[in-house]
Amino acid sequence: MARIVMKFGGTSVADLDRIANVAQRVKREVDSGNEVAVVVSAMAGETNRLVNLCETASNLFDLREYDVVVSTGEQVTVGLLAITLQSMGVSARSWLGWQIPLCTDMAHGSARIQSIDTQDMIRRFGEGQVAVVAGFQGVDPQGRITTLGRGGSDTSAVALAAALKADRCDIYTDVDGVYTTDPRIVARARKLDKITYEEMLEMASQGAKVLQTRSVELAMKEGVRVQVLSSFKDTPGTLVVDEDEIVEQEMVSGIAYSRDEAKITLREVPDRPGIAASIFGPLTDASINVDMIVQNISATGEKTDLTFTVNKTDLNRAVEVLRSQSQTIGYSDLLADRDVVKVSVIGVGMRSHAGVAQTMFKALADKGINIQVISTSEIKVSVLVAEEYTELALRSLHTAYGLDAA
Amino acid sequence: MARIVMKFGGTSVADLDRIANVAQRVKREVDSGNEVAVVVSAMAGETNRLVNLCETASNLFDLREYDVVVSTGEQVTVGLLAITLQSMGVSARSWLGWQIPLCTDMAHGSARIQSIDTQDMIRRFGEGQVAVVAGFQGVDPQGRITTLGRGGSDTSAVALAAALKADRCDIYTDVDGVYTTDPRIVARARKLDKITYEEMLEMASQGAKVLQTRSVELAMKEGVRVQVLSSFKDTPGTLVVDEDEIVEQEMVSGIAYSRDEAKITLREVPDRPGIAASIFGPLTDASINVDMIVQNISATGEKTDLTFTVNKTDLNRAVEVLRSQSQTIGYSDLLADRDVVKVSVIGVGMRSHAGVAQTMFKALADKGINIQVISTSEIKVSVLVAEEYTELALRSLHTAYGLDAA
Repeated sequence: MARIVMKFGGTSVADLDRIANVAQRVKREVDSGNEVAVVVSAMAGETNRLVNLCETASNLFDLREYDVVVSTGEQVTVGLLAITLQSMGVSARSWLGWQIPLCTDMAHGSARIQSIDTQDMIRRFGEGQVAVVAGFQGVDPQGRITTLGRGGSDTSAVALAAALKADRCDIYTDVDGVYTTDPRIVARARKLDKITYEEMLEMASQGAKVLQTRSVELAMKEGVRVQVLSSFKDTPGTLVVDEDEIVEQEMVSGIAYSRDEAKITLREVPDRPGIAASIFGPLTDASINVDMIVQNISATGEKTDLTFTVNKTDLNRAVEVLRSQSQTIGYSDLLADRDVVKVSVIGVGMRSHAGVAQTMFKALADKGINIQVISTSEIKVSVLVAEEYTELALRSLHTAYGLDAA
Repeated sequence: MARIVMKFGGTSVADLDRIANVAQRVKREVDSGNEVAVVVSAMAGETNRLVNLCETASNLFDLREYDVVVSTGEQVTVGLLAITLQSMGVSARSWLGWQIPLCTDMAHGSARIQSIDTQDMIRRFGEGQVAVVAGFQGVDPQGRITTLGRGGSDTSAVALAAALKADRCDIYTDVDGVYTTDPRIVARARKLDKITYEEMLEMASQGAKVLQTRSVELAMKEGVRVQVLSSFKDTPGTLVVDEDEIVEQEMVSGIAYSRDEAKITLREVPDRPGIAASIFGPLTDASINVDMIVQNISATGEKTDLTFTVNKTDLNRAVEVLRSQSQTIGYSDLLADRDVVKVSVIGVGMRSHAGVAQTMFKALADKGINIQVISTSEIKVSVLVAEEYTELALRSLHTAYGLDAA
């Protein structure tokens, strides 16, 4: 007997047929004698519909009320799944964030989990009852509903698995695991049997949509054994594990890409101390995150060009902020470019292998792809290139690192 | 300064434009210096959509889970209305049933209100905050969401008005008040300025859809001053008041009709003690309500015909139950008829006027309308006639009782 948390995303519960499919998978685990908590998202499209209602009602909405509205998506799914499980003879009840309670801080719209009371749930496991838990939602210290931000249901599942001391946290999704890269672009992409927490974290934060970054961080911190697998197929998925569980580590495990970034270049910025603060301070004040940053060495020692990336959705606001600060900063020109893609090669093997970046630069140069910005970390090299090269860059790199399936 | 409860139904909050219209009406009351709690229903069509999801998931659903699902309709509306009020500069926050808390019994799907904690809400009135309250929902002693049954938002509003000791409970709807009869059928129907609780109660329970029966009962019991008025027009509505507030009482105040009933006749039932129990006992056991009952005097003293009505939605089940009991009851034939309408004339003036029923019978006879069943109470006479006569019967009676507008 094991205690497991199963998590199903929006496409896996998109309609009643799919909810019945989820119920079948839950029943199978129950019939195997396992204790099961199942975390579900809103039916596909529902969260967008609700967000859109809030945004249309007012462009400056109260996030506490936004949370009241958008949390209903998961509330509908848990009720329907509990009903469906019962109709199959499986004892089940739904749990909303405030009922557990899953306590969060007061950061409405992107709250962080502080504690989860699992006492009643565990008692009911003993009575053979499945806990059907609304993902993405919690309750703040004042008793108001909070949500955890986009993709928050992954975080709900991992946090619940940690609180329940579950043996496994199975994240069911519309793909059957974590791939070396996006198989829709690279036909020869391979499914990974195992990936380390750190690689998964980089993959997620560099654009792979399969798991939410925060949930991977949490799994790593709490040592939750996460598995990513398909809700539609009966094939083994990808296990996210500690580094020491992977015997033969490849140099590069995967290649991620993100079209969510946009590039800003400030031309002829005075090359003096404090200039970076005068640029990035106002952006931070406007809650705009900056990702990659490159400062060119200036020829004269007086002026330099500064390039960095922001999220595409923040581009217009970033440009506005920088224009309003043009006197203080003193640049000659501001260039914005949406047509870029960030491509990242990721692997814990990099720590012990030299030449990983060089392989990347050469593979891209061979195809005539110009690198606009480079940034590196211990287990990752990212480059920014023109968006039109996305597919070509991914395929070339996949081959260059020997990742192609036989 | 007054303290008022405003209630808006599904058609009044059907989309964001209408929610903005509701917010304007709330703002007007706030600007007049009033303390306001506003109770809202789900956006039109939403409750039906949610009920349908539950019914499709399983035909024998757990009402506790049903309540989890359907209560989301009101949850969305309160969030959106609070956002809209804030965007107009009105301080507002949403309240879900469990947050107030509005405590109910455990009868999920049709729970009854037991207590409402208004302390925090009243404190916030003092800070100028509008309470935006989800109608139709509460929380049971175990902390699970309950709903109050169809039309329950009227009951939420009246109960909240009683708990808040509000000066007024304004029920905004898609008609501009209570009419002598359905103005869509009788063009000369008149809007009533005032109606007594008792008459309103009979109107509601005899088919007028303007207020839910339970809410009128509660208003009468608690002495809540209810006004029915239009969310779309700026005209005075109808006040529901104590009998002594109406100086000149008409004999008949209104004519209601209901197409929700169906007629069952059992032929040649043995005319012996206990026979009624053998028929209505099994129906009660199956939770089928019987409304009008007539037993004919038998010519021979041995056999009699028995006719009664049930809700149309219960007809098939009722026939099934009675067929299964045919040996015990011993009737010769069972006739079921869906094509009937119940027409009721209502007025507290009946208590002091004779001949009210006679006027009804004559008016119907003059038009050749056959009366199938009659039932009376102190302030009401109801008859069952063939459904095809609905309009003719209503118009004839409206004229016969002198209710036509000039």
